[in-house]
Amino acid sequence: MTQTISRTRISPQGYLDLLSQMEARRLLETSKGEVQSLFRSCSLAVLNCGKSLDNSKKLLERFQDFDIRVCRENGGIQLELTNAPASAFVDGKIIRGISEHLFSVLRDIVYVEDEIKNNPGFDLSTSRGITNAIFYILRNAGVIRVDSDTGLVVCWGGHSICREEYEYTKEVGHQLGLRCLNICTGCGPGAMKGPMKGAAIGHSKQRFYNGQYLGITEPGIIAAESPNPIVNDLVIMPDIEKRLEAFVRAGHGVIVFPGGVGTAEEILFLLAILLDPANKDIPFPFILSGPSSAKDYFRQIDTFISQTLGDEARSKYQIIVNDPEAVAREMERGIAQIREFRKERGDTFFYNWLLKIRHDFQKPFDPTHENMLALNLTGNQSTFELAGNLRKAFSGIVAGNVKKAGIQAIEERGLFQLRGETDIMGPLDTLLKAFVKQQRMKIPTDQQYSPCYQLLQEEFEPALKN
Amino acid sequence: MTQTISRTRISPQGYLDLLSQMEARRLLETSKGEVQSLFRSCSLAVLNCGKSLDNSKKLLERFQDFDIRVCRENGGIQLELTNAPASAFVDGKIIRGISEHLFSVLRDIVYVEDEIKNNPGFDLSTSRGITNAIFYILRNAGVIRVDSDTGLVVCWGGHSICREEYEYTKEVGHQLGLRCLNICTGCGPGAMKGPMKGAAIGHSKQRFYNGQYLGITEPGIIAAESPNPIVNDLVIMPDIEKRLEAFVRAGHGVIVFPGGVGTAEEILFLLAILLDPANKDIPFPFILSGPSSAKDYFRQIDTFISQTLGDEARSKYQIIVNDPEAVAREMERGIAQIREFRKERGDTFFYNWLLKIRHDFQKPFDPTHENMLALNLTGNQSTFELAGNLRKAFSGIVAGNVKKAGIQAIEERGLFQLRGETDIMGPLDTLLKAFVKQQRMKIPTDQQYSPCYQLLQEEFEPALKN
Amino acid sequence: MTQTISRTRISPQGYLDLLSQMEARRLLETSKGEVQSLFRSCSLAVLNCGKSLDNSKKLLERFQDFDIRVCRENGGIQLELTNAPASAFVDGKIIRGISEHLFSVLRDIVYVEDEIKNNPGFDLSTSRGITNAIFYILRNAGVIRVDSDTGLVVCWGGHSICREEYEYTKEVGHQLGLRCLNICTGCGPGAMKGPMKGAAIGHSKQRFYNGQYLGITEPGIIAAESPNPIVNDLVIMPDIEKRLEAFVRAGHGVIVFPGGVGTAEEILFLLAILLDPANKDIPFPFILSGPSSAKDYFRQIDTFISQTLGDEARSKYQIIVNDPEAVAREMERGIAQIREFRKERGDTFFYNWLLKIRHDFQKPFDPTHENMLALNLTGNQSTFELAGNLRKAFSGIVAGNVKKAGIQAIEERGLFQLRGETDIMGPLDTLLKAFVKQQRMKIPTDQQYSPCYQLLQEEFEPALKN
Amino acid sequence: MTQTISRTRISPQGYLDLLSQMEARRLLETSKGEVQSLFRSCSLAVLNCGKSLDNSKKLLERFQDFDIRVCRENGGIQLELTNAPASAFVDGKIIRGISEHLFSVLRDIVYVEDEIKNNPGFDLSTSRGITNAIFYILRNAGVIRVDSDTGLVVCWGGHSICREEYEYTKEVGHQLGLRCLNICTGCGPGAMKGPMKGAAIGHSKQRFYNGQYLGITEPGIIAAESPNPIVNDLVIMPDIEKRLEAFVRAGHGVIVFPGGVGTAEEILFLLAILLDPANKDIPFPFILSGPSSAKDYFRQIDTFISQTLGDEARSKYQIIVNDPEAVAREMERGIAQIREFRKERGDTFFYNWLLKIRHDFQKPFDPTHENMLALNLTGNQSTFELAGNLRKAFSGIVAGNVKKAGIQAIEERGLFQLRGETDIMGPLDTLLKAFVKQQRMKIPTDQQYSPCYQLLQEEFEPALKN
Repeated sequence: MTQTISRTRISPQGYLDLLSQMEARRLLETSKGEVQSLFRSCSLAVLNCGKSLDNSKKLLERFQDFDIRVCRENGGIQLELTNAPASAFVDGKIIRGISEHLFSVLRDIVYVEDEIKNNPGFDLSTSRGITNAIFYILRNAGVIRVDSDTGLVVCWGGHSICREEYEYTKEVGHQLGLRCLNICTGCGPGAMKGPMKGAAIGHSKQRFYNGQYLGITEPGIIAAESPNPIVNDLVIMPDIEKRLEAFVRAGHGVIVFPGGVGTAEEILFLLAILLDPANKDIPFPFILSGPSSAKDYFRQIDTFISQTLGDEARSKYQIIVNDPEAVAREMERGIAQIREFRKERGDTFFYNWLLKIRHDFQKPFDPTHENMLALNLTGNQSTFELAGNLRKAFSGIVAGNVKKAGIQAIEERGLFQLRGETDIMGPLDTLLKAFVKQQRMKIPTDQQYSPCYQLLQEEFEPALKN
Repeated sequence: MTQTISRTRISPQGYLDLLSQMEARRLLETSKGEVQSLFRSCSLAVLNCGKSLDNSKKLLERFQDFDIRVCRENGGIQLELTNAPASAFVDGKIIRGISEHLFSVLRDIVYVEDEIKNNPGFDLSTSRGITNAIFYILRNAGVIRVDSDTGLVVCWGGHSICREEYEYTKEVGHQLGLRCLNICTGCGPGAMKGPMKGAAIGHSKQRFYNGQYLGITEPGIIAAESPNPIVNDLVIMPDIEKRLEAFVRAGHGVIVFPGGVGTAEEILFLLAILLDPANKDIPFPFILSGPSSAKDYFRQIDTFISQTLGDEARSKYQIIVNDPEAVAREMERGIAQIREFRKERGDTFFYNWLLKIRHDFQKPFDPTHENMLALNLTGNQSTFELAGNLRKAFSGIVAGNVKKAGIQAIEERGLFQLRGETDIMGPLDTLLKAFVKQQRMKIPTDQQYSPCYQLLQEEFEPALKN
Repeated sequence: MTQTISRTRISPQGYLDLLSQMEARRLLETSKGEVQSLFRSCSLAVLNCGKSLDNSKKLLERFQDFDIRVCRENGGIQLELTNAPASAFVDGKIIRGISEHLFSVLRDIVYVEDEIKNNPGFDLSTSRGITNAIFYILRNAGVIRVDSDTGLVVCWGGHSICREEYEYTKEVGHQLGLRCLNICTGCGPGAMKGPMKGAAIGHSKQRFYNGQYLGITEPGIIAAESPNPIVNDLVIMPDIEKRLEAFVRAGHGVIVFPGGVGTAEEILFLLAILLDPANKDIPFPFILSGPSSAKDYFRQIDTFISQTLGDEARSKYQIIVNDPEAVAREMERGIAQIREFRKERGDTFFYNWLLKIRHDFQKPFDPTHENMLALNLTGNQSTFELAGNLRKAFSGIVAGNVKKAGIQAIEERGLFQLRGETDIMGPLDTLLKAFVKQQRMKIPTDQQYSPCYQLLQEEFEPALKN
Repeated sequence: MTQTISRTRISPQGYLDLLSQMEARRLLETSKGEVQSLFRSCSLAVLNCGKSLDNSKKLLERFQDFDIRVCRENGGIQLELTNAPASAFVDGKIIRGISEHLFSVLRDIVYVEDEIKNNPGFDLSTSRGITNAIFYILRNAGVIRVDSDTGLVVCWGGHSICREEYEYTKEVGHQLGLRCLNICTGCGPGAMKGPMKGAAIGHSKQRFYNGQYLGITEPGIIAAESPNPIVNDLVIMPDIEKRLEAFVRAGHGVIVFPGGVGTAEEILFLLAILLDPANKDIPFPFILSGPSSAKDYFRQIDTFISQTLGDEARSKYQIIVNDPEAVAREMERGIAQIREFRKERGDTFFYNWLLKIRHDFQKPFDPTHENMLALNLTGNQSTFELAGNLRKAFSGIVAGNVKKAGIQAIEERGLFQLRGETDIMGPLDTLLKAFVKQQRMKIPTDQQYSPCYQLLQEEFEPALKN
């Protein structure tokens, strides 16, 4: 059942080949220090790829004898694996793509620890400093293609979608691939795998051999969404907010496929940025799309946005139902516009430096009962701020639904409470109930979903908006 | 429904770039001469790839305005397409892989006409001459990889198999791809597409970027089995027998997936070669494999071979049920053996010159009523000759079932008659009845299958065998 | 002194790797037949490259034990060398460039024998047929770069020039290389090596890594002018006239450096083509250039052309003295014009199909006493015909000076006689005397040059020209 | 005479393409700060390459209007050149190799300033820290080829040697190139250019297209020895001692050609390392070689070493006179040994981590009158320390001969004084007198050399050596 390979060693290709003695020694120490458990759990997720969905805890229990260590070899380093899942091997030899992913994990964990966190050159307390750090992590990972003018399309959406929706994401990927566009996703299954698979076929039809399949993940996510094998560039960002920022700065446009409340969070994150007056004139293709069956889902989201954020917010995205070709054509058109725009403004095509992201949105939101209750869900603020707060609300609900800390907090202290004015809480209530009904709150099981939140509506004095 | 692109021109890449004036002129003339209709119908099949199964006649009717012409441009040539199927284009530009396939068709048709048929250097009336001509066609097509020591695995099987069998062929392809083996098929759908798709994923997991997906077809087959888009090397051989020989000489081993009576024909073709005493010591991996549901199918074939050709014939192949990994491992082992064997004997790895193929097997078999009746289906011959004659019998039944000429002959003159001794006709009858029952005679429809043949059994005096 | 390597075997790379059994067998036979002595002498010249100038006879005497044989190996072929010059080896291993040259010789000798001479498809009795055959030989040799739009500059001139002139050819090559132009020469020493060496440095300064250094030779020339090591594309044409035609069709322009009477022959060959009314509008950069010391040499040639062929002939070339940069700039400008011209006319950039070369100029001229005397050296013909006849006269003088057959004929039958009208014979006499004085008739030795010809001047009735 | 190009902009290729905004801004500031004059003078030297030998001061005077500035462009940077030497351009476009060298200069100056000097991670006060920093500079410059097992041969010797010696260095380079070895030099003219030119021809004969021609220089040297155009990897180390260490750690062996007193300094630097007991067992090919005319030069050095450092020192090198093939063969043999040795010890092939270099040898020696007089030139120390002190003595003489600060010091305070025991000062006196006689002290001029030093000999009590 849980077959393992008792002991094996693998060598790096590329980046980690060329270490100084100082660096090799530091890697060895790292491997003994406290980041070792982080490295071990991420590595196990990578090795377990392709197997049925699992959470991190179960995975670690199943392979409790698993270990991974950095060791010295011929002036460089190797990784020694003990009791690794047999599924990562073919006739006793590790699959090369998985080996690359393991070294990507090591590379990024160590780079963030050594070069970002401990480097006085990076001021992570400023917005600029964070944006710079994200660029450095991506560049160090070798995933920025400076000579390329190929567009990189970010695909978001649920990781446990139904067959019809999955096939639809594949077909959109196919159409993107036929137009020689590259794909970036959160690198797990479902809406993160479909577009890559489709694009791979499209690229091969066009003899486009150098396609990029970029996966951007972070330690808390990797176990549940372990990188699918098509990913040929893998980056592990230090946290969720930096991962989201990496998506919008490295990508040239975003397609959102159906998902759950997490997908709603992503939509609001992006709206919060695009509604910022500082970004008013910056083009950014943003498309919501799914098969006919997903029509209602998107209509509900659209209605919610319309009621809470207004028409300007709605103008930031298009909804395209059941037309993969149209999605790909729109994306291509949008990217051509970006190419033009950045040339005019003297910005790089490979990284969106011009986009402003408020420091508040870059900082992690901790969904405690206090923080949830304190969220300003009223019209008494600019729309981009409201979008940012709604995003935090959804983020908290995700945590309460599925994350360990969130579930525990709910068990101890009762439901999260969200308070806001009726004009906002009403539509929110409607949307969340629709999600419950469509079983989009959690991975569907036999049990009925029981909410982790409670909505409190109050009549506020509407503030004067100019 | 049948959208078309009214007019477009495409340029060759590679081989046909570098034409002499003489050659360019000859291509232009060709395009006006009698091979033009052959070129047109093959081209239409290529352009229609990926669409639902069709026969050549329906296809030509549907696109009766379609035309394709060679024309001069900048000292070289181009192809001008009129009213081509829109599905071959993306936003008005032809898909590059399809463009390559069109030029492959042109290349091979012209090469065979000009350099093989009209070249006194090739003596097609001898076995050696045919073998040489096949090599020249493959080499001219650029599909022989001289520097490679990667094994090329030939996959045979039906083009209209059920979902379960199709998924199985994909998984076998996946396991072959994980072992960095290349794939060669008849390049149509079903068992010809599955292994390539699977191998493409396996290759990408192993970062094996230079995989070969070789399709070998011939003009009569291409319309029904138009090349799937993954094929990156396409060759059009002049007839069925040369196509079969190309498979066994260019490939390093054969896997047979479930199919119908055509698949039985292929198995007997290969057995007729391997049973030839001249080939006694030549290793040739030969595996029959399918999912559990195909177990009966292979048992029946195995029984039939055992009863008619005996145990030596059975020793030439392995049957592996429902174990893709075992299939791939066996194939890898067999190819390692071939590598060793050819080195010892001073033979090339890229073409199996040593294998003897009788001239009689290389010549096309014309399934008339007379030829069918005249087939020697008795024990009064060597086993390899009997295998060859059985193969012809199956070939005739395929023709009677689905080919235009065969169906017409049956309509006019009644059922084909096959005559042979009871020990052979009995098992043959059993096998054919099983095929009927399993709906493997023809593509399943509502109508019941009505046989195109009649078996006559006689008691022969068993000849003395030494 | 004449160290040799007793026995070694070398394997082909590329083209000859991928032989059919038929071809391999034919190569083996070839190696026993009558072309074997041709192959042996060319091979010896290749192996002896870089050593002091030698004639073929001396070379064969010095290495009389040398042998080279084609043999079978692993389904392909190898060359077995016996008693080969040690200078072609480094620590017992053959220098790879020399190994490539050996297989180029084999490839071209066999191709011409098998595919050109014995192929009814080529009608060598027509001008078109010869032009086609030359294209096939070049293409088969893989020296035509279809995707390139880099100009190929042909450099002509003496192979035994003085140091100053040699340095000048290097500097011109350097300037051509700095402009990323490729070089084509007769591939021997002197003016054939200098431009390649210079271009190699220029290419390396520009990081132009894919430079072509094309050598075009023929069996009678290769021994005296064995390919210098920089040549990375080598072709052996069957005779002198095909070699000259290959230069003007594959190259995009010609630079003539100082040389002797052979160089004058080349200038007149090119003039005979460019003066043909059929070629009136075809651009063809043609530059005579040398250091200051060569000023007189070119002035004399220019005067001779002016007096015999008139001003139209002079308009076909430029003379540039002591200005390598200007030479390179003019050549670059001329090639840009060609690129434009061919695009307009729909001709290929890689082969000059449009240029007309009269069949008479393509046929070898045999310099017997009768043929020399019969040359029409009068104004009673079109200028391009007169240029062609003058070229033959120079060709005969070269033969009388240095070629075995010519020297023997002179010994037996006395001096060659050339007869013509005074307006032509006078300038010819002046030019030849100047060559004698400048020691450009033969490789300078202690002995005074004694002419092999006698000029007869007659007053002709000038014919009416229309 | 001093033609210039008034204004032009050039773009980086590779490394500097992919800058963060932070880095681009820092480069802009750098370009205004105090390193600007360093950058300007190094750049001018690079642009002036290939022109007659010059010193830095004259060069700056001649091109006093020259300027070079970093500027922003399309999110990246460009260099703007004003009044740059025309010789670096072809028809108004900069030669690409020179453009690469300019960006190498920028890269290294900025890297050292930003990442080495200001990085607390590097402890330059320890030997290990310096060795690490050197590795980082080389790696950042992209000159370490991790996948290669090709040997890198360091060639030292004078930059103003005679024609015969120069031709000899070319022939040694040729023989190294024929054995597919790479070349590393100080990247100026003379013995630094000859081996690269020769190797380029050798590599091209062997079709070894990926040869490395590594130049390692430093700001004080670059003007006098500006990088020759064949250098395809250029590194600017911060000072002389780091440059010397880079040679011995990145290279696999050293060949010393004839030179002057500077060459003697280099020999003693290497001996001081190899004589260190810590390095006793580490193989290091070390060959002194020159044409027959250099026989005396090497005999004198050999005698000097024998008399002062003894036979162990002599065992560290070989002297090979007039035999380029033997030099190359010995070097190849030595490198094979290193490959073996490092594999056994687990050291990298691309950087010699195992070699110990005393911190005292890594620190710059400042040749003041006091420091010179204080040098311990007695037998009262270990031989490797004595070698180190002799090296400093030679270093001081070089400074007194040609460096601005040294010449000034001599003018103000009289000759340098060196004090030591007779057994050492006697041989030193003999050697220096021989250098004077052979005109190896300075670049030969009409004036007689007048020494900048004075040798004081004393009878010391010989210390007890164990």
